[in-house]
Amino acid sequence: MQIKEIGEQGLLKILQRFCPPDIIGDDGAVLPIIADKSLVVTTDVLIDKVHFSEITTSPEDVGWRAAAANLSDLAAMGALPLGITVGLALPGETPVNWVEKLYQGMTQCLQKHNTPIVGGDIVRSPIISVAITAFGQVSPQLTIRRDRAKVGDAIVVTGCHGASRAGLELLLHHDLTTNLTKNDTEALIKAHQRPKPRLDVLPILWEIIDSHSLVDISGMDTSDGLADAILQVCHSSKVGAIVEATEITLHKATINWLTKEKALEYALYGGEDFELLLCLPKQAASELVEKLGDGAAVVGSIIDSDKVVLHDRDEKIPDQILNLNRGFQHF
Amino acid sequence: MQIKEIGEQGLLKILQRFCPPDIIGDDGAVLPIIADKSLVVTTDVLIDKVHFSEITTSPEDVGWRAAAANLSDLAAMGALPLGITVGLALPGETPVNWVEKLYQGMTQCLQKHNTPIVGGDIVRSPIISVAITAFGQVSPQLTIRRDRAKVGDAIVVTGCHGASRAGLELLLHHDLTTNLTKNDTEALIKAHQRPKPRLDVLPILWEIIDSHSLVDISGMDTSDGLADAILQVCHSSKVGAIVEATEITLHKATINWLTKEKALEYALYGGEDFELLLCLPKQAASELVEKLGDGAAVVGSIIDSDKVVLHDRDEKIPDQILNLNRGFQHF
Repeated sequence: MQIKEIGEQGLLKILQRFCPPDIIGDDGAVLPIIADKSLVVTTDVLIDKVHFSEITTSPEDVGWRAAAANLSDLAAMGALPLGITVGLALPGETPVNWVEKLYQGMTQCLQKHNTPIVGGDIVRSPIISVAITAFGQVSPQLTIRRDRAKVGDAIVVTGCHGASRAGLELLLHHDLTTNLTKNDTEALIKAHQRPKPRLDVLPILWEIIDSHSLVDISGMDTSDGLADAILQVCHSSKVGAIVEATEITLHKATINWLTKEKALEYALYGGEDFELLLCLPKQAASELVEKLGDGAAVVGSIIDSDKVVLHDRDEKIPDQILNLNRGFQHF
Repeated sequence: MQIKEIGEQGLLKILQRFCPPDIIGDDGAVLPIIADKSLVVTTDVLIDKVHFSEITTSPEDVGWRAAAANLSDLAAMGALPLGITVGLALPGETPVNWVEKLYQGMTQCLQKHNTPIVGGDIVRSPIISVAITAFGQVSPQLTIRRDRAKVGDAIVVTGCHGASRAGLELLLHHDLTTNLTKNDTEALIKAHQRPKPRLDVLPILWEIIDSHSLVDISGMDTSDGLADAILQVCHSSKVGAIVEATEITLHKATINWLTKEKALEYALYGGEDFELLLCLPKQAASELVEKLGDGAAVVGSIIDSDKVVLHDRDEKIPDQILNLNRGFQHF
């Protein structure tokens, strides 16, 4: 069954099953706001064959990843989600089933964070695109910004990097012969198809902020790569950083499979791991890393410089200055 | 100059000129919220050659219309705007100038309502699409809903209908010979290219709500046509309506140019006039119409029925039952 056979009203009826019935049905969605919080808004657009491909990504996974990317942006701001809207552009020939699976994937990810789809728009288009806007709430004093990293701060990552990029490689090249076990292969592919937004970090971070009386937390998510995140925060904060290559947590499976250089390249430039990068005073950083566990690490420190230097304690890689040009460019 | 020549970062630098500098630069935009208000969110997606065409619409007009459509949805909910996000998908060959003009048109419309562009996303795509999400605030007791029309309510329209559709006709058929004056022609074309969201209605409506102690106001905007708006409100409210054809305010220029039947068809089914349809007790409705002036009118009343009947006092058109199938269908 194709969308043009059931029409806009038919498709809306199906998709409304994924939305809270008391919120939809008007020109806009109405949501209560908790007093004294700020509203955080973030948008992502995904285009078929640019950001996803049926070769590597089922419609469920497209939905999950789109939702995860937006929730990750909220986590990066320190905000808990209120809801998302979905702007969907589709050819009339798109199978109805494809759209249902997309929404299933989105809601699977959203339900883990009690986040409703509160509205959207469906339009005809020669190619599929999914535009998601997520909005959340944060206490003004707990808002995480890019421009507040301070000289002396430790740089924390909340988990391991490079797994999503490695999983993509495995999906793109089914004939790839690797020394990976079945479990490792599946773990890397899952890291690519079902990345987890790190909203779970926030309550733990708030405890640390509270116990250390911290203000002006700086950070962002690593969706465009770990190197990009460090560079963006340093650029916005007008500081530099020294990053210790051996401290970057690589996924166990990538170490088993790839050379150290390749695994590190995936970690720095691969993107889509959706971890958080946070800059905190050293003692608070250590405590956060200990409480998070599971790949969280202090990977470097903020210095008074205009450069971000990657250093290798084992001296296997010469010092290098990181720059944005190796990251993903949209044009 | 094409976008692919300046890249994503180059384009972002240009577009950031259209955004408040203190709000952009993070993973999400942060906005203060007034306590005790509800958040209203609405999304629209526009696709090149489906929703706009370079034949009829300059990039400035695409921008204006996209912003106006979203502000109109907020007005339809009774909400004042806080900001919008823009998700832009573009081929690399798009002229940089085209995108600048799009943003100029958007901000021209937004500035009239003190509404900032607070963020967005720019991605590569084979075709141009513009996904806008607007968010606003409304006091819970002043929220306008579709499902609250009551038997006995008068149906108010805030202005004239059919001008946008007539303007489109003139733009599509430059060789169209009409008996229109240059002024009338320009007025109709402007109605299509630069529709005005009726946020100005809200303070006047609030006065009436206050002085008549009204609760549960029902309504929506007429962006998909006046017939669609009446039908949607009646369907959601589980009521019917009788609409008096002679009371529907037609644009003077359409009366000069078209048969009465054609002008009425444009008014009922043309869409994109972006007026509001509101259901209020009769006395309150008369006062609202008087205060609004300029085409505002009571066009009918809500009845206990499952049908919406169009009646012509002059008996030139036989009674007809309105239905949604004549409205714009997206697939």
